[in-house]
Amino acid sequence: MSTQADRYPVTDVNRVRRLAERGQYAKEDVFAIVDRALVVHVGFIDDGRPVIIPMTCARDGETVILHGARKSRLTEAIAGQPVCLSIAFVDGLVYARSVYHSSMNYRSAVLFGTARRVEGEEARLQALKAMAARLMPGRWDEVRPPLPAELKATELLRVEIDSASAKVRSAQSLDDRDAYTDEQWTTTWAGILPVATAFGRPIPDPAVPKEVVLPRSVASRTQAPV
Amino acid sequence: MSTQADRYPVTDVNRVRRLAERGQYAKEDVFAIVDRALVVHVGFIDDGRPVIIPMTCARDGETVILHGARKSRLTEAIAGQPVCLSIAFVDGLVYARSVYHSSMNYRSAVLFGTARRVEGEEARLQALKAMAARLMPGRWDEVRPPLPAELKATELLRVEIDSASAKVRSAQSLDDRDAYTDEQWTTTWAGILPVATAFGRPIPDPAVPKEVVLPRSVASRTQAPV
Repeated sequence: MSTQADRYPVTDVNRVRRLAERGQYAKEDVFAIVDRALVVHVGFIDDGRPVIIPMTCARDGETVILHGARKSRLTEAIAGQPVCLSIAFVDGLVYARSVYHSSMNYRSAVLFGTARRVEGEEARLQALKAMAARLMPGRWDEVRPPLPAELKATELLRVEIDSASAKVRSAQSLDDRDAYTDEQWTTTWAGILPVATAFGRPIPDPAVPKEVVLPRSVASRTQAPV
Repeated sequence: MSTQADRYPVTDVNRVRRLAERGQYAKEDVFAIVDRALVVHVGFIDDGRPVIIPMTCARDGETVILHGARKSRLTEAIAGQPVCLSIAFVDGLVYARSVYHSSMNYRSAVLFGTARRVEGEEARLQALKAMAARLMPGRWDEVRPPLPAELKATELLRVEIDSASAKVRSAQSLDDRDAYTDEQWTTTWAGILPVATAFGRPIPDPAVPKEVVLPRSVASRTQAPV
């Protein structure tokens, strides 16, 4: 059952205007897209101008954690400021029987919130662990943990999500039989050309001794979706 | 030979601040990334707030064409306004010998300019053709061209690029031998887990008669990179 708390209220901020029937406001639909992203596009206002910087991200409940380096343009400009996060996956090119209905299948999400620095050593370590668990599951326990100076050099931001929407297209073309001649309709191919992202074969660092085997964190991933 | 006109001047707007040695300002480096994108994240200011919308894009010289529907939030808000375009490809996860040096290989570009409506029927048709040539090369000649009402319902924006930068990481981990014990260094696997996007097997629309063969525009693409 969907309750009010499971959905983002539809407001002027997050309302999907173009092709509104594709808009989704359930948090689980938005989160499903965020949880697949390796990178999020972070939009903010800097000196009165719109700026976007792509950053790595991980979700922690209703918060999105962003990872950067101290003193980056982003972290200087956005702590305490409203930001917009955008993610888009292209799942396929939709070949229609006309130029006009040619389209794409995609999943996208746009999220709004305020960016804040993660403060305090323990909270920062936890945020970094969440980021690592998302981007390289299982890797934390295989490698050297961060030194105090390394943790200090890492900027972690958290964006509490106030509002968001997802937009998904997943279908064949919307060609309308009536808009074509019989010949156009019966002789023109239409369909989907899928687009998919996958992991490839691991490339060891040449400095690694030959006897070191592929660790579980990497081996388990080569068969998994990105 | 690189001339001034081949590069974007480095200013406070486009200067890469984090890991500045990865910044690239040659137009050809920026264009190479734009020309691989199916989608660009378009950032603008709407009612004093940063907003991003993902859109399809095509490059025409120093201009990026964006495609939307009339009366979308974007096209209402941004015609004549400064926008920021952002593109990012993840090429691999870089597994280091420590949490801190764990990284990603990527190619990203951030572009700045002003969005304007493409005006006039002929200019709009040309912009739509450029968009089609980028997203579905060869398809225009296989399908029904746009009807006047369809062309009218299509919004086309052009962003003349004033400033831009690219940022590329393409390397093994930057682990420093001195930051590890001998055991850590000699027993920990490090390397790159590549991430790649590819076209899959075309899925015909069930309404297409069985005798209609896969057209050249699609067949030629299934072996090509995205």
